[in-house]
Amino acid sequence: MQTTQLSLVTVVAEAVLETRLVELVRSLGATGYTLSDCRGEGSRGLRSGLEAGNVRLEVVVSAEVADALVTRLAESWFRSYAVIAWVSAVSVVRGEKYLG
Amino acid sequence: MQTTQLSLVTVVAEAVLETRLVELVRSLGATGYTLSDCRGEGSRGLRSGLEAGNVRLEVVVSAEVADALVTRLAESWFRSYAVIAWVSAVSVVRGEKYLG
Amino acid sequence: MQTTQLSLVTVVAEAVLETRLVELVRSLGATGYTLSDCRGEGSRGLRSGLEAGNVRLEVVVSAEVADALVTRLAESWFRSYAVIAWVSAVSVVRGEKYLG
Repeated sequence: MQTTQLSLVTVVAEAVLETRLVELVRSLGATGYTLSDCRGEGSRGLRSGLEAGNVRLEVVVSAEVADALVTRLAESWFRSYAVIAWVSAVSVVRGEKYLG
Repeated sequence: MQTTQLSLVTVVAEAVLETRLVELVRSLGATGYTLSDCRGEGSRGLRSGLEAGNVRLEVVVSAEVADALVTRLAESWFRSYAVIAWVSAVSVVRGEKYLG
Repeated sequence: MQTTQLSLVTVVAEAVLETRLVELVRSLGATGYTLSDCRGEGSRGLRSGLEAGNVRLEVVVSAEVADALVTRLAESWFRSYAVIAWVSAVSVVRGEKYLG
């Protein structure tokens, strides 16, 4: 089946950031996202350890939106918040479902 | 260590589809899968929003099985159900664990 | 934005192994990790099925650490425990956050 190459962005952040994170993702044109609860520990003591709630957001977007999202996170969020993000290449069918 | 190149398929669907999704994955020859609970919002209003339960299935399979799985989902499920899926390239050790 | 190519290692294991898994990941120099609860079924009946709790660990590391981690898991854990692991290529911004 014909596939489209897109980018999967995974963001792990403090749970209190969930609403802002969803707003950011939507504002960049993503048409859907997946959220799950997680826990963890991060670099520089920023992520507050196993006892604290984290949220994990996954979103499949174009390479341009992925770049815009991680750039915004790095420029505006990394200094103040416990946030990490990574981008991987994925292929999907019906790629138009994922593009704004 | 020697690694094998395989495909990771991630499927996010309404929680009520979990049993059918597992049956589909098994019928295609997958020898294992991972399920977790999540929530989300999707394109075209299909995924019913934060209040509704979604399930996230991950399965590591051959490229052929990955293609068969997403083809089946696209042809038979995308029209009627809130389902998204993406495929990424992964490497594993002991690749025989993942092949039917 | 400038990105760094790193490796995402995902490990799914019996929940009782969580502490040992985190110790292993830290001992290899990872500076952070994400944990979430999941369930699943695996090859050879090793993973004990839907009723049993599993944990899913994700860690972004250098290719060398990723290789060391999956090698250790394959050599020391796969025989005795219900564990699977896969590695995928990811890009991150502020790559230094992820390196020990």
